[in-house]
Amino acid sequence: MTGKLTVIGLGPGSPLQVTPEALAAVDAASDFFGYGPYVERLELRPDQRAHASDNREEISRAAQALTLAASGADVCVVSGGDPGVFAMAAAVCEAMEAGPPEWANVDFAVVPGVTAMLAVAAKAGAPLGHDFCTISLSDNLKPWSVIEKRLIAAADAGFVMAFYNPVSKARPHQLTQAFDILRAHLPGNVPVIFGRAAGRPDEKIRIESLDSARSDMADMSTCIIIGSVETRLIHRDGGQPLVYSPRSWSAGKA
Amino acid sequence: MTGKLTVIGLGPGSPLQVTPEALAAVDAASDFFGYGPYVERLELRPDQRAHASDNREEISRAAQALTLAASGADVCVVSGGDPGVFAMAAAVCEAMEAGPPEWANVDFAVVPGVTAMLAVAAKAGAPLGHDFCTISLSDNLKPWSVIEKRLIAAADAGFVMAFYNPVSKARPHQLTQAFDILRAHLPGNVPVIFGRAAGRPDEKIRIESLDSARSDMADMSTCIIIGSVETRLIHRDGGQPLVYSPRSWSAGKA
Repeated sequence: MTGKLTVIGLGPGSPLQVTPEALAAVDAASDFFGYGPYVERLELRPDQRAHASDNREEISRAAQALTLAASGADVCVVSGGDPGVFAMAAAVCEAMEAGPPEWANVDFAVVPGVTAMLAVAAKAGAPLGHDFCTISLSDNLKPWSVIEKRLIAAADAGFVMAFYNPVSKARPHQLTQAFDILRAHLPGNVPVIFGRAAGRPDEKIRIESLDSARSDMADMSTCIIIGSVETRLIHRDGGQPLVYSPRSWSAGKA
Repeated sequence: MTGKLTVIGLGPGSPLQVTPEALAAVDAASDFFGYGPYVERLELRPDQRAHASDNREEISRAAQALTLAASGADVCVVSGGDPGVFAMAAAVCEAMEAGPPEWANVDFAVVPGVTAMLAVAAKAGAPLGHDFCTISLSDNLKPWSVIEKRLIAAADAGFVMAFYNPVSKARPHQLTQAFDILRAHLPGNVPVIFGRAAGRPDEKIRIESLDSARSDMADMSTCIIIGSVETRLIHRDGGQPLVYSPRSWSAGKA
């Protein structure tokens, strides 16, 4: 007997950014696996079971969810943001590929969501309005040399960048190194946006320049957007400037 | 008297992927500007006015919306997907910067949405599960040489890529050129996903390899995802394979 496994994204945190499709998947499922703070966002019925786990247990969480789904349950794996961007959809696929054959035949679906960089970009203006890269700064799962190479490639090719997992208690220095690398490849005045809890009551959006950006402006929940030489500021009366990347290329006249 | 301008994203097309925040912005506004097919998705009241326009009129549409908002109206500019990714948020910022000073002081907000690459990725598995680039293949607004440089940089640095605006009637050849460039920089077996109308009744998700990918598999509404050497396939009984990019780096062993 084979059940179902749906990986859903709850968006950056505001209930107003959760899609009806994600809510329908929650309504249909019996068991919920995910990082504690995401599972806690759900309003479950008494007949639904939450299996919350720690942030660093993605693969064992995925294996538990697949085991239960393969036994016939309707299982939901919960991510914040979008489940396909540095989140649980890839972890479930990894577990599925490494696991017993019956796991690969579970009815499997992914429900997309609003990922953090889109919510942060929306609050700042339109910094992702042209070509951009999305990079995890965590070197838990890839060598730092690969991250370094990607930062330089992205800067030299003129991509705007969005950073996920910029710092953690175990990795306090990577973001400082990343800023140092970028300062060698980009002008110091490109805008840098630090966005945290976009759309939630504790939202913080901070606009700096590459020269003034420091790693202590971020924590593990911050999404950082680094402008390109094309990215521009619009100053406005009594408020934060808007940051946007024009749709057209101007050979870096900004 | 200054009104309000909100740029909203309706997601890829399914009503189940429209956020409550976008619906609330629609409910509050009096006037709606956007590309015809997006404006037609709205269920407007008799007291609300639709101002639909052609796909290529982004800046004049933005200027009209800003003029009306500056005169006191509550105006909504409508995009498909996310308004910040190759869509109207940047066009409104461009018009605002070039326009009269009062435009910059309109109450301005952007409401994020599910952008096409996230919806297509969800249907395929988790191809955007690790570092990726998002690139518009249109050379209407930037020289083809810049696009070429970015494709090569992204391929050589190991990024997965998502292409927007891959082809149009006026630009039938760019996608063929892009595939040719990538074939010189990536193995022929990296997966290529062609996704169209994800989540809608006419959805089409097609999985090819870089060697077998052809430009006539796409039209202007297709989002294309190009895997990296890390991207993997999981074959499943009686269905399309899952495509995913592992969270960890394996030095291209795939």
